[in-house]
Amino acid sequence: MIIDCHGHYTTAPKELQTYRDDQIAALQDKTRVPTKGKINITDDQIRESLEGAQLKLQRERGTDVTIFSPRASAMAHHIGDETTSRNWTEHCNDLIHRVCKLYPKNFVGVCQLPQSPGVSPANSIAELERCVNEFGFIGCNLNPDPSGGNWTAPPLTDRHWYPIYEKMVELDVPAMVHVSSSCNPNFHATGAHYINADTTAFMQFIQADLFKDFPTLRFIIPHGGGAVPYHWGRYRGLAQDMKRPMLVDMIRNNVFFDTCVYHQAGLDLLTKIVPIDNILFGSEMVGAVRGIDPESNQYYDDTKKYIDKQNWISDADKKKIFEGNARKVYPRINAKV
Amino acid sequence: MIIDCHGHYTTAPKELQTYRDDQIAALQDKTRVPTKGKINITDDQIRESLEGAQLKLQRERGTDVTIFSPRASAMAHHIGDETTSRNWTEHCNDLIHRVCKLYPKNFVGVCQLPQSPGVSPANSIAELERCVNEFGFIGCNLNPDPSGGNWTAPPLTDRHWYPIYEKMVELDVPAMVHVSSSCNPNFHATGAHYINADTTAFMQFIQADLFKDFPTLRFIIPHGGGAVPYHWGRYRGLAQDMKRPMLVDMIRNNVFFDTCVYHQAGLDLLTKIVPIDNILFGSEMVGAVRGIDPESNQYYDDTKKYIDKQNWISDADKKKIFEGNARKVYPRINAKV
Repeated sequence: MIIDCHGHYTTAPKELQTYRDDQIAALQDKTRVPTKGKINITDDQIRESLEGAQLKLQRERGTDVTIFSPRASAMAHHIGDETTSRNWTEHCNDLIHRVCKLYPKNFVGVCQLPQSPGVSPANSIAELERCVNEFGFIGCNLNPDPSGGNWTAPPLTDRHWYPIYEKMVELDVPAMVHVSSSCNPNFHATGAHYINADTTAFMQFIQADLFKDFPTLRFIIPHGGGAVPYHWGRYRGLAQDMKRPMLVDMIRNNVFFDTCVYHQAGLDLLTKIVPIDNILFGSEMVGAVRGIDPESNQYYDDTKKYIDKQNWISDADKKKIFEGNARKVYPRINAKV
Repeated sequence: MIIDCHGHYTTAPKELQTYRDDQIAALQDKTRVPTKGKINITDDQIRESLEGAQLKLQRERGTDVTIFSPRASAMAHHIGDETTSRNWTEHCNDLIHRVCKLYPKNFVGVCQLPQSPGVSPANSIAELERCVNEFGFIGCNLNPDPSGGNWTAPPLTDRHWYPIYEKMVELDVPAMVHVSSSCNPNFHATGAHYINADTTAFMQFIQADLFKDFPTLRFIIPHGGGAVPYHWGRYRGLAQDMKRPMLVDMIRNNVFFDTCVYHQAGLDLLTKIVPIDNILFGSEMVGAVRGIDPESNQYYDDTKKYIDKQNWISDADKKKIFEGNARKVYPRINAKV
């Protein structure tokens, strides 16, 4: 079985965005009391939104199941306040739940959290519980920068985050570290902010003893770990200079990278440098990069093809990348597929 | 000849830091008028600070000349105001000038700029002119985030920066895009902020037509280009989705990467993926990572050794990486060494 750990519902029916546009517009009208409201999307619309996109690509690429979450760039936790974020998040997660009910063999849910700048992550616990206990979701996306490119929250190793970690450990669900869109004009969302956040989170984990406090807490750093594998020597050297443990020991049971690296040489570096046990297959399909690479005549984000070509990896290790590691990191998937 | 394009004076005599500590302390005393003041450092102290460090390592590693600038992490443009930054910058550049006069075969100068948050880069022109015209420096370090991790300046492609670009073009000197220390606890300086800035700057260059306005403007993105070569497919795909020109065409005459990547696999990726004409040898020695890699028994930052092992690169191409490209990007070096 091939499990893609990184897919977002980027093709949701337009009614979702209409709701969001209206919600954002209403922020300007101080007389309107924000309510969750309703979004009318039919099952057929959901089917249509997936059949020609994620499901078609799953079939074409030979992947079986996608760990599926709301569109990351649309989380935009920096917009409005906590209530804005909560209403929007609940709708997005409700929709993922409907997708997973319609296609239980193809999608397993991961939730967005109702984060908001300056608000305690403790306030996201209820939504995490709702999604895991009521919907059967198997993880969450945690935004290390709810301010959307201003980076005003404390580092992920700060006690600020501990309440949500305690709940993640209790529920035995991991988080993918995933920022959203950027309201800072310096950072292109998918071309800079995403990758920077990945790199930033990794370095935070290296600097502190978070996993001594939470030995079973697990994070997936997406987009191939940002800059980290390319600079693996830099990180090994920095850890050494800082008298920290070896990188491989620090990340072993806690930090994992997906394979969302969109060219052969990059993915080759990842699987040669990072321990196989810390790599989960992912494609981010349909996501940041949607074109066909004229050099290879295949989709940039068809990351399975790059791994298929890596003939130095044993079948047993490939099974770990494609399935085993996902089952280890997201154990609740085992009751699903 | 082997030209190392990326070295900072990280081993300066302690009097420099004492001056800085005093300058920062004085910021608390509103009755003190900030003046440039003096730093008493003898030529012998300068010699001593280099003989056992950069000069020793040049000899041991077989590099000839280092393009040398003040310690990047100490620029700290976010501290104090424009006057603070100007006084500190002038001292740092004065000291680099003394180094270059003492060792004209070993060091060629690149200046720090007196940037300050919210201050126009036009105000850095005088110091750039002083360093190039009076000291014979061949380039500058440009900090895209003078706020030190809060990223409050406009993107590098914004007209905000055009005055300094006009002067760079007139003087025919390039800039290395180099942030300084981070006052944002999210970003470890050398482990996150530096690498993020490299990635961020590259994406900014891809999004805009800066080099149509300045066809001869040249930037070096250090630390191997941040995350960019590892995610080369992502950047090619993003450019394609955005209907931008091909990456190699966009960067050809304007954007260059150094080789500060501290393991063999990372440097192999760089030289296999990025056009050779866009790669300049650099080591950042003595810099972010100072230890010996137990896996290879060599210094992490002895990047020449990694390139020496790349037997698929022709001698002519290696000469470009080690010398020719530096002479092209920093043409004023040709009158020096």
